Amino acid sequence: MTTAAGATPSELRVAQQMCERARRWTQPALREAVARLPGPLAAAGAYQFGWQHSYGPEGPGRASDEVDEVPEAASPAGADSGKAVRPALVYLAAEALGAPAERAVPGAVAVELVHNFTLVHDDITDGDATRRGRPALWRQFGVGPALLAGDGLHVLAMDALLRRRDERSAVAAALLNRALIATMYGQVRDLGFVQRPWAGPEAVSVAEYRAAARGKTGALLACAAALGAVLAGGLPRQVARFAAFGRHMGVAFQCADDILGLWGDRQRTGKPVGDDLLQARKTIPVLLALTADTPASARLRDLLTRAETPLNREALPGVLELIGEAGGEEATRREAEHQTALALRMLAAVPMSAETRARFAAMAAYLTRRGS
Amino acid sequence: MTTAAGATPSELRVAQQMCERARRWTQPALREAVARLPGPLAAAGAYQFGWQHSYGPEGPGRASDEVDEVPEAASPAGADSGKAVRPALVYLAAEALGAPAERAVPGAVAVELVHNFTLVHDDITDGDATRRGRPALWRQFGVGPALLAGDGLHVLAMDALLRRRDERSAVAAALLNRALIATMYGQVRDLGFVQRPWAGPEAVSVAEYRAAARGKTGALLACAAALGAVLAGGLPRQVARFAAFGRHMGVAFQCADDILGLWGDRQRTGKPVGDDLLQARKTIPVLLALTADTPASARLRDLLTRAETPLNREALPGVLELIGEAGGEEATRREAEHQTALALRMLAAVPMSAETRARFAAMAAYLTRRGS
Repeated sequence: MTTAAGATPSELRVAQQMCERARRWTQPALREAVARLPGPLAAAGAYQFGWQHSYGPEGPGRASDEVDEVPEAASPAGADSGKAVRPALVYLAAEALGAPAERAVPGAVAVELVHNFTLVHDDITDGDATRRGRPALWRQFGVGPALLAGDGLHVLAMDALLRRRDERSAVAAALLNRALIATMYGQVRDLGFVQRPWAGPEAVSVAEYRAAARGKTGALLACAAALGAVLAGGLPRQVARFAAFGRHMGVAFQCADDILGLWGDRQRTGKPVGDDLLQARKTIPVLLALTADTPASARLRDLLTRAETPLNREALPGVLELIGEAGGEEATRREAEHQTALALRMLAAVPMSAETRARFAAMAAYLTRRGS
Repeated sequence: MTTAAGATPSELRVAQQMCERARRWTQPALREAVARLPGPLAAAGAYQFGWQHSYGPEGPGRASDEVDEVPEAASPAGADSGKAVRPALVYLAAEALGAPAERAVPGAVAVELVHNFTLVHDDITDGDATRRGRPALWRQFGVGPALLAGDGLHVLAMDALLRRRDERSAVAAALLNRALIATMYGQVRDLGFVQRPWAGPEAVSVAEYRAAARGKTGALLACAAALGAVLAGGLPRQVARFAAFGRHMGVAFQCADDILGLWGDRQRTGKPVGDDLLQARKTIPVLLALTADTPASARLRDLLTRAETPLNREALPGVLELIGEAGGEEATRREAEHQTALALRMLAAVPMSAETRARFAAMAAYLTRRGS
């Protein structure tokens, strides 16, 4: 059950339709792509996407005895990536420029493959044991096979865009490749924040947070929308507008995600509540709470700067309450709404049907929806 | 000190000149590319290439206390990859088609980046702790940073080819990307061989070995030569010939490498002698020794099929001697020479100066040279 921050039930319904059609249009080509991986890696790829796969008599390799079975009920559709948000943006951008959906399929396949490639590798580097309510790929198949499967998804994503070997392929492939560079920069920035203090001249500013989010979350959303435009034959200026839309939506989405990371809900994020705080990750609700000029804000600053690093799990409920009291959650919602408004403004100059424009607005609302 | 199997001192000198000029022509652009990685990853990339890098006050991150220092004397030029064999092939192919070296630089940069990306990830998946006589990247920086740095090198390689965003870029990028798919298939095939028996109907055939080597070793050598031809404006038919040259050279090179893996020398390979055998890897000297119809061959078959798996380290000297007695090393050298001849024959139909043709022959001899 999800409700939205400022999103109407009808917007949510439209967004879900967009994702549903994107899944339907993308699935055949996506499965075909993953099946092109060599046997054992194809099995790993199928697992990552939550597909049935015949693993042969021995079943998939096991990384650890602790993982005893894959929960039957767990489904990737329960998590964001399974929702095909990025493919939905590819198709919408192509639709805005009047191109048929078929033209956008390679872009949708590519962003979905790349998104999953980054998830697989990130879970290894972060040591995250679960993904979409199931054991992460590396827990199920081992680090080596998971690493190679991730590389395989990466290569297949480029392949999806480079099949035609014409100028447009080069533009599309360069776009995806640059998005990966930008994502990497965002991730490294974000990781660097962990070492920085909560207060004082070395503290992480909201502007720095936004820059990191534009990269780590925005780059691929931007790429999705831009790819749809490129494959539809859009001019560079139009492509840039779709990209800007995606970058702002990345910051908005990251704001919503940071709220979920601090206050719930666990089922959707698959992460224990408050973990970001225990790991000293500089999430925006805390940054905004700290910059609010209120007594709660001052108490929070005192608490975080004097607290042992890493923060004690017992101190967590008190800290979370103070962040709320200092208005961290509300300010973050406002930031998300502000970024969403900026995102939609980027598309204002692109002529498109009222229906398509409403679909973009619905997707934007959906991306920042509030957890139940 | 290296001498060659059938290579003259003058051929070796020419090949070394080819590699030396390739290093000189490639280095500036390669360093520029690696410097485009975000800070911590750029440091990891520089380490991988064996360059001086300012790591900041704390020095590079440490994955393990066991690795105490980076040996000063160790130099990447002491290992094959540091020899710039792949860039040398890129430039030679461009030279054959009459193009200036500058035109081939993006190809040389791309193959060198991709080669190192695969080394970095392979060392993680294989758990290899040393590379070029120094701690492998993951031992020095940790698995997570090494994995990300590998991904970064991969992305930069594509970027080098996609900068111009024209049709030729798309062809070049698709070529590199397909080479990665072929490499992956070869690696997976080769890994699958480990589970197969040494004798009987399930045994690995020499034809299967060649197919795996064409992928895991040949695909990137083929790509190097083909990229040089593409960037020089070569026609598809010519490009295919350079690719075929590289694929045969891949098998020849793998033969030479398998000999080194069994009998030495350790300094050059960085791997303990005989390890391939202990890991039940199906290397060609053993396969050819087993198919020789001699008493030694029969004794070897008995020994390997009755031996415990994995093979006991104490049994190693006896097994190695039997492989030699059954003619495994000599047959492997003949296979390498046969593949080298096939490789050069692929270029016979490509018009080029006698000097350039001699340079290809020198490179081919160099790639399969005998360890000292």
